[in-house]
Amino acid sequence: MEETQKNRSAIAAAGKKFRTNNISKRVQKIVISPIKEMSILADEFEEKNPGADIVSFGQGIPYFDTYPYIKDGIRVALQEPDTSKYTLEPGITELRMLVGDFLIHEKGAINVEAKKEIMIGVGCQEVVACALASLIDEGDEVLVISPAFASHIEQVIQWGGTPVLVPLQENEGWRFDITEAEKRITEKTKVVLFSNPSNPTGKVFSHDELQSIADLAKKHDFIVISDETYDFLTYDNIPHVSMAKFHDVCDRVIVCGSFSKKYALTGYRVGYGFADEGIIDHMLKVHDALAICAPAISQKAAIAAIKGPKEFVADAVQKFSANREAMMRELDTFSDIFSYQKPEGAYYILVNVNPVRNSLFQNKRSDALDVAVSNGIKIPDIDSFKLALKILHEARIIVIPGAAFGAEGENHLRFSFACPPENIPKGFERLREWKEQWKKERYAL
Amino acid sequence: MEETQKNRSAIAAAGKKFRTNNISKRVQKIVISPIKEMSILADEFEEKNPGADIVSFGQGIPYFDTYPYIKDGIRVALQEPDTSKYTLEPGITELRMLVGDFLIHEKGAINVEAKKEIMIGVGCQEVVACALASLIDEGDEVLVISPAFASHIEQVIQWGGTPVLVPLQENEGWRFDITEAEKRITEKTKVVLFSNPSNPTGKVFSHDELQSIADLAKKHDFIVISDETYDFLTYDNIPHVSMAKFHDVCDRVIVCGSFSKKYALTGYRVGYGFADEGIIDHMLKVHDALAICAPAISQKAAIAAIKGPKEFVADAVQKFSANREAMMRELDTFSDIFSYQKPEGAYYILVNVNPVRNSLFQNKRSDALDVAVSNGIKIPDIDSFKLALKILHEARIIVIPGAAFGAEGENHLRFSFACPPENIPKGFERLREWKEQWKKERYAL
Repeated sequence: MEETQKNRSAIAAAGKKFRTNNISKRVQKIVISPIKEMSILADEFEEKNPGADIVSFGQGIPYFDTYPYIKDGIRVALQEPDTSKYTLEPGITELRMLVGDFLIHEKGAINVEAKKEIMIGVGCQEVVACALASLIDEGDEVLVISPAFASHIEQVIQWGGTPVLVPLQENEGWRFDITEAEKRITEKTKVVLFSNPSNPTGKVFSHDELQSIADLAKKHDFIVISDETYDFLTYDNIPHVSMAKFHDVCDRVIVCGSFSKKYALTGYRVGYGFADEGIIDHMLKVHDALAICAPAISQKAAIAAIKGPKEFVADAVQKFSANREAMMRELDTFSDIFSYQKPEGAYYILVNVNPVRNSLFQNKRSDALDVAVSNGIKIPDIDSFKLALKILHEARIIVIPGAAFGAEGENHLRFSFACPPENIPKGFERLREWKEQWKKERYAL
Repeated sequence: MEETQKNRSAIAAAGKKFRTNNISKRVQKIVISPIKEMSILADEFEEKNPGADIVSFGQGIPYFDTYPYIKDGIRVALQEPDTSKYTLEPGITELRMLVGDFLIHEKGAINVEAKKEIMIGVGCQEVVACALASLIDEGDEVLVISPAFASHIEQVIQWGGTPVLVPLQENEGWRFDITEAEKRITEKTKVVLFSNPSNPTGKVFSHDELQSIADLAKKHDFIVISDETYDFLTYDNIPHVSMAKFHDVCDRVIVCGSFSKKYALTGYRVGYGFADEGIIDHMLKVHDALAICAPAISQKAAIAAIKGPKEFVADAVQKFSANREAMMRELDTFSDIFSYQKPEGAYYILVNVNPVRNSLFQNKRSDALDVAVSNGIKIPDIDSFKLALKILHEARIIVIPGAAFGAEGENHLRFSFACPPENIPKGFERLREWKEQWKKERYAL
């Protein structure tokens, strides 16, 4: 046995050497999302440093448990024998009907045929995967509005496509510039993909911005995938406008949504897709081959969630709103090294950790670090992955490297404020101490 | 509003006409698994014919609820706030460790590094999807031992590969013939994929058959994906041999497993993959982009399942074994139109509905329908999809068309005996009545 064990280790070691010969080119090109990687690295760090007491501004998970009435619904579901069995592949009919009503009453969709136009997936993530698989072949191009949700970029590559990043205008509150999109359209453009409200920028797209995207899709015959995971979460009375509202492009829009954030059900993996039957039919084939069906217990949790009282979601929005205020107040005291755009929705702030470079790049000077610059010091890119690791190791805080969100994300870190409120002052106190050391290292004169 | 609704319908109708221009070629080539399609069709049929009281020998779902101790585990999990949150992307550490122990003690693996070599997925289905995505590029070939699990074929096409079917020898108890495999190997062969025990044939691969597959993989530098969903379920003391036992190819074997059938958790969507770190690392990137993580509550159900008493699984095997006997007894009375190979494992019988043609084709005559054949009547292929539909509509029984399982499956129907025991006499009584009519239609002299 001893001998065999050694043998297996030797084979495994040899295996690693030639292994990449056996791995698909497509998957060699993708990376694990740094959002998840930071969690794994933090886990390893904590294992080596017991009691490290890491504060996470990383993965975007509501800090509170799912609502009590949803748990009651799950307890009832546990007594139903069909909960342990596969559901119909497109999802439980009642859930699809409820999502249809929601699309009509809260998103402005019309004429929804829930049984033909809605699918329930393993979270919004799987629904977007089904959509991309159905729309792109090897070499096709997808316009990804950037900074973008990290997984969107990987998903495009995974299905053999090329993500073509369309930059948002950071210094104008992450404005969407239609000309930036239009000049990147080629014959291979099959899809435009974005999240609204946006992860990681917190941007909420205006009606006019969405109309311009719809017009572009029509003009150039491509499909719009709108990830509306954070639809319930906007601030300062800014309205969320769904792509479901643009009826003249209903045949070329896929609206993807989730129960994860609204109902604090991230672990349950359940979301939905809404599109013309001619698209959904194909997405369902992919869904079948990827997952068979979404988890039955999670679908039943989603049914309970939608049918229950509204005040829990309203309360959650209040909580996130208070956290946003608290985090912005903290960040305002970091203006010597950080700048940021006020998030209009979702629960992220994409902090610019290199504002001077950003200002120079955009031909606008800010006051930050003016002294250093006027002294002729060059401001190089900041490797956001290295910086995030440094912050993890030195300040014991998880933040997400901006490079995860596309080229526009470099020189940024994403801070999530879905964390427990007490973590905000705690984390920023540590960050404040850490900052002094970092400034010395970086701008050592 | 009325006007807009009409408008949307018109746009949607027009959309359908040009829609295929926007659908990927890859996904246009795949179909929804007839296993799921039959369920959907039956649902529609029952809606139009209330009280149709359909008997299902279709989808392979254990007829009983998940075990009480697992439900207790889920109830405890519901009280833990982290159950509503994402788990670590590769899966809960405790579950990976438990699977590692299981692989060592029950599958003969050695030296398992659970944290590096095991991933938890959204059922075995998603794990196989992650494996294929990681191994094949556009145009690569996958040897699929056939008749094969329907979704395996679709999964290969979905990731841009070409399934190359390797036929089993039906009349020799579905024997695997290595020369049939070897003559189909080309430079593009990247993977051999099969389920063991096999869905749909019930075949259990022998140690020698598996050794020959291992040798082939080594010789031609490809990867073995072994779907061992039904590992717990063999009959007549036939042992299940896992690919994890072949240590000299541990660097090129992916063992995929499930909690769905063993613990009656099909609706929970949780399974696992075991492979060399050099492969798992890539599979995890795909998993991240497809699903983020497996459902937390389902992972906790799996933990409870593994840690609990063994007698429930033993009892389930007894139940399936009794059902198998009952179904074989019924089928033996259908020898005028059906033939079948005794299943050695899993809970399916792939019934040959055209045994005369099969016998002629294999140059062996059987007694069945000899009269008709000696009268010079040609025995054409039987379109298994049409036949399954006919049986659904006329006898109100769900069976799965064999064509779903590859070319070798045509002229067959898959009967699942995971159904409640009382459904077996009930369904076969109906089938007996139906048979007389069908014989008249088919062999009208």
